[in-house]
Amino acid sequence: MPPNTVVDIPDFADIQLARARISDWARLTPVLSDPGLDRQLGCSLYCKCENLQRTGTFKFRGASNAISRLREDGIEGDVATHSSGNHGAALALAAKLDGRRAHVVMPEDSVVMKIATVRRYGGIVHFCAPTQQSREDELEMLVEDGKIPVPPYDHADIIAGQGTAALELIQEVSTLEQVITPIGGGGLISGTAIAVGITGQQVYGVEPEGAADTVASLEQGERIASWTPDTIADGLRAIIGKRNFTIIRNQVRQVLTVSDEDIRRAMYLFWQELRMVIEPSSATVVAAIRNHPEVFAGKKVGAIISGGNIDPGHWQSLTNRH
Amino acid sequence: MPPNTVVDIPDFADIQLARARISDWARLTPVLSDPGLDRQLGCSLYCKCENLQRTGTFKFRGASNAISRLREDGIEGDVATHSSGNHGAALALAAKLDGRRAHVVMPEDSVVMKIATVRRYGGIVHFCAPTQQSREDELEMLVEDGKIPVPPYDHADIIAGQGTAALELIQEVSTLEQVITPIGGGGLISGTAIAVGITGQQVYGVEPEGAADTVASLEQGERIASWTPDTIADGLRAIIGKRNFTIIRNQVRQVLTVSDEDIRRAMYLFWQELRMVIEPSSATVVAAIRNHPEVFAGKKVGAIISGGNIDPGHWQSLTNRH
Repeated sequence: MPPNTVVDIPDFADIQLARARISDWARLTPVLSDPGLDRQLGCSLYCKCENLQRTGTFKFRGASNAISRLREDGIEGDVATHSSGNHGAALALAAKLDGRRAHVVMPEDSVVMKIATVRRYGGIVHFCAPTQQSREDELEMLVEDGKIPVPPYDHADIIAGQGTAALELIQEVSTLEQVITPIGGGGLISGTAIAVGITGQQVYGVEPEGAADTVASLEQGERIASWTPDTIADGLRAIIGKRNFTIIRNQVRQVLTVSDEDIRRAMYLFWQELRMVIEPSSATVVAAIRNHPEVFAGKKVGAIISGGNIDPGHWQSLTNRH
Repeated sequence: MPPNTVVDIPDFADIQLARARISDWARLTPVLSDPGLDRQLGCSLYCKCENLQRTGTFKFRGASNAISRLREDGIEGDVATHSSGNHGAALALAAKLDGRRAHVVMPEDSVVMKIATVRRYGGIVHFCAPTQQSREDELEMLVEDGKIPVPPYDHADIIAGQGTAALELIQEVSTLEQVITPIGGGGLISGTAIAVGITGQQVYGVEPEGAADTVASLEQGERIASWTPDTIADGLRAIIGKRNFTIIRNQVRQVLTVSDEDIRRAMYLFWQELRMVIEPSSATVVAAIRNHPEVFAGKKVGAIISGGNIDPGHWQSLTNRH
């Protein structure tokens, strides 16, 4: 491990530092709310629009923080990761802004648009077979060749970077009672839990039913290491990371699940009321709030809208019955 | 004419008053910029995202201001207008928030989504034949029946309301050198010219080549009253209003034109760099900046992104070669 990962789990101060570190690179995304959406959800929702973040997702925060830490520590050289797209694009741009190259191992069946996006930001794509083992093997070869690994979620600098979205949200809307984020590998919710833990909001996570490895892990009391995902939320198919699971177990109040059908409806609702096209992963939070009035009704809720990397034609095909 | 339209052309103070008046209703929309977009356009662009305004366009500002003025003047009763969709939806919501109904005359060939949107905000749709005469005749009947007319652009309260978008923009980014908006009936550019006139930015307008009645009017020195529009920018097919033409002639530096092909490319570019799906009318400003480096290169430019009311599937079909 490179020297900048000595601290295993970041604390609130690390998120504050991350925010200062990435402020020239990451966009201060808007927080939007809508009375029509609130009426349909039965709560007051404040959406932190990371779908409008650079590279289209919150992932750019963690990637920027990790790259900036390398710079601070005087570590030169190209970086490498594996990704189905969003972390890869984010790392490619962050690396480019720091004068490096990013090597991104992607499964050969990746979404074409996501491959193009990684390349557009200057990333070098290495294709592998569509298995976790193949991804890791390919990355290992790049690391042996001298590239610096920057993992997508199970990494202190990544978690601290992702937490800056929630930090901005609670500073802009100081009276929130609850904050909710999607869970894939767990980088976003871990950072969020640490960011808001200090101010007392309850933190909720959401997983698609077809990628509910965190719920299963919580039920059996330890992290499960394998799950075959089956969901339209392509950004949430990862298995929860080790650090991430520890943080969730300690600091997240509840992890809810939603069906793909719930997600499709929520994508359409979000567009109808806020005129934004968001990817299925992002819509999970809206779906969870809609499904669980016993948790959210009447509350002032902050939601991290995690990303907008979906082709509008694909969006249409996913939502066209709604 | 109702008593609230005695002042024919609003001034800067009217826009300030409008802003105070609508502040509880209209959303303070975000201003976004993107280094990737700037690189492609060769300038520093600040986008005032009225595509994220309530009802999906800046039209809600003018409609809210007009309805609030009726309330201030003690004028009760339902309102009426004709619209191909955006002004109708905006007026329907503004009327509803004030406890009124809005009657909206729409051509029978209107976009299905726009009809549904007017109704979703509580508007009562009256269909007419797809001609200007038929629209006006139908509206006249509603007015004779006691409804209060709220025209879409050629009206002082509407112009003052639309000007609040530019007012917010120049207050947030005080160092702009130029501001650009699309031109349909001219409500947005008129309000913009008055809002920024006081601080000295140059104001530019854009029309699609297939609806360039303002350019033709400027060339011949008087407003032309008829034009058969042919453009994908459905929000810009109107003929310039009388008050609006006067304001443009006096206060707008130049009106540029763009082709439908330019618009399609700009829609795609905007999505690629900012992950927002915008309607063709909005993309005209991006297209104009791209086409005219001799005007915009190296400048700090504010653009009003006028609306986002386009079905994502339709967006896809318009942009799919790009």
